[in-house]
Amino acid sequence: MKKFLNATDTLLTESLGGFALAHADIIELSAPPYVIRRKQPKQVGKVALISGGGSGHEPLHTGLVGLGMLDAACPGQIFTSPTPDQMLAAAQAVDTGGGVLFIVKNYAGDVMNFEIAAELLDSPNATVLVNDDVAIPKSQSTGRRGVAGTLIVEKIVGAAAEQGADLAACKALGERVNQNTASMGVALSSCTVPALGNPTFTLGEQEMEMGVGIHGEHGRATLPLTTASAITAQLAAHIDDDLKPQANAQALLHINGFGATPLMELYLIYALAAEHWQQQGVNIVRSLVGNYTTSLDMAGCSITLTLLDDEMLRLWDAPVHTAQLRWGC
Amino acid sequence: MKKFLNATDTLLTESLGGFALAHADIIELSAPPYVIRRKQPKQVGKVALISGGGSGHEPLHTGLVGLGMLDAACPGQIFTSPTPDQMLAAAQAVDTGGGVLFIVKNYAGDVMNFEIAAELLDSPNATVLVNDDVAIPKSQSTGRRGVAGTLIVEKIVGAAAEQGADLAACKALGERVNQNTASMGVALSSCTVPALGNPTFTLGEQEMEMGVGIHGEHGRATLPLTTASAITAQLAAHIDDDLKPQANAQALLHINGFGATPLMELYLIYALAAEHWQQQGVNIVRSLVGNYTTSLDMAGCSITLTLLDDEMLRLWDAPVHTAQLRWGC
Repeated sequence: MKKFLNATDTLLTESLGGFALAHADIIELSAPPYVIRRKQPKQVGKVALISGGGSGHEPLHTGLVGLGMLDAACPGQIFTSPTPDQMLAAAQAVDTGGGVLFIVKNYAGDVMNFEIAAELLDSPNATVLVNDDVAIPKSQSTGRRGVAGTLIVEKIVGAAAEQGADLAACKALGERVNQNTASMGVALSSCTVPALGNPTFTLGEQEMEMGVGIHGEHGRATLPLTTASAITAQLAAHIDDDLKPQANAQALLHINGFGATPLMELYLIYALAAEHWQQQGVNIVRSLVGNYTTSLDMAGCSITLTLLDDEMLRLWDAPVHTAQLRWGC
Repeated sequence: MKKFLNATDTLLTESLGGFALAHADIIELSAPPYVIRRKQPKQVGKVALISGGGSGHEPLHTGLVGLGMLDAACPGQIFTSPTPDQMLAAAQAVDTGGGVLFIVKNYAGDVMNFEIAAELLDSPNATVLVNDDVAIPKSQSTGRRGVAGTLIVEKIVGAAAEQGADLAACKALGERVNQNTASMGVALSSCTVPALGNPTFTLGEQEMEMGVGIHGEHGRATLPLTTASAITAQLAAHIDDDLKPQANAQALLHINGFGATPLMELYLIYALAAEHWQQQGVNIVRSLVGNYTTSLDMAGCSITLTLLDDEMLRLWDAPVHTAQLRWGC
């Protein structure tokens, strides 16, 4: 294992310290329990948006705390759910009377711990469960994972909350975004979790892992490596099966790198995916290309398509000011 | 070699097509010769800023074209200088009478080709040569390379040009930023150039390459892998030898990933580097952490320190709207 670190058990805390120092104008770190919270002023009574999950997916979620997006993020240990006390501390720190919306990726540990936190919390709260990963068939939908579409839920609901939407409206909107979002990923390598020291799976020189998640777990199938066009077609077909985009629909196309794949390759995938949907008459009206929901040092990418109604589009365009996603301010 | 591609000789053009499609609101691609040019309106007579170089360093330079930064970028083949006809086409496309400033990383091919373009160009022009890489001692300063500090030159001069600075002022400012900028990099792996198909150098499981450039060339020394603290101290010592920052100086600290290193590790390096300079009394007033000047899929990072005077700080903060760097608008 070759990584920049002093010790595997201090990597996360040292890194969080650097993150807090680098972005001291917009966020602050409370510890322990570890919470990254928004520092910028906000309206009293705004719904507080909180997310979190295992670390190793940066910039998700810590890099997405700030104006127009999350009020707080709870970073767990690498690929490990944060604890209910982190979530509770986050909620108590950022709730200003408008209630708390938890945005939770659909993993058993995260779901359980956010449920415990919600029960312990005195103030009004609700949860949006994100499960955009279509690698797992709909018939097993209880097991569908939350992956790169989570950022899109957080951005759109974050804008609505900033503009004064109440808790019920934010929850309904988040669920609408999630229902209109589908993602599918492919890996060319595994990742190496520092505490383990070795890749969590191995692939041959001519193999790829199709339908992979973001925790170094095996995907749907190990397949022979093929062209970017054929890979994109496979990913897009799964998304089409799920979302069934109509001609003239407007959509956001997000190509997400898992951490070790150059932008040059991500933009190639973008070109191929955009062409795929344009041929179906889908209007790709917004794009996001880069490493946003990563899996440590994994080589690979995912394609996410979100069908946007006019309100979702307007909220996507609204100002956002976080450490790693920023526009309009 | 495991990469997303259809064919090695079409990767760049397909990727540029995707880039142009994803960011059609702010840039456009002319081809051939390939030029990414700014689409947003600008003041007639504004100095036109043009950069370029071998591809494989994305988002540098194509991702930095737009309001407040570059007017055009010329992408060469991977790790290969663009051609004079690309540079000439770029200059003719974006010059509106204020003259052209070429921002050139100090590599023999780039320098020669930009010189040829400058000679062929009818309109007034000047060049800023960036050579911020302190891995090569000052005594061999003709050979110092331009690396991650290039982005800082482009941002600060881009803001000045946007605000109406003339050609001579932009050139002088660019040279001042370059003189106040020092970078040093370390790699944990080589990168793989698609056309070659194999890593350009190999490192043992317990080795790192210190003083590495951004083209997969060997660095200053192959050394035993050590702690992040010891690595940071080595990089910072070389920067200190060159820049000799004074107590109470204000500085921008840029931790740049080479492509395959997770943000978590980059923020750890940030924490250690910031602590190093804080102990010397240097005020780290701005930061940039992420993959900006990459070397395809290389694991590693560089540290860049820029000593900022008040004008440079104000220009760093000025609005910028490019594909991969954006704030204030």
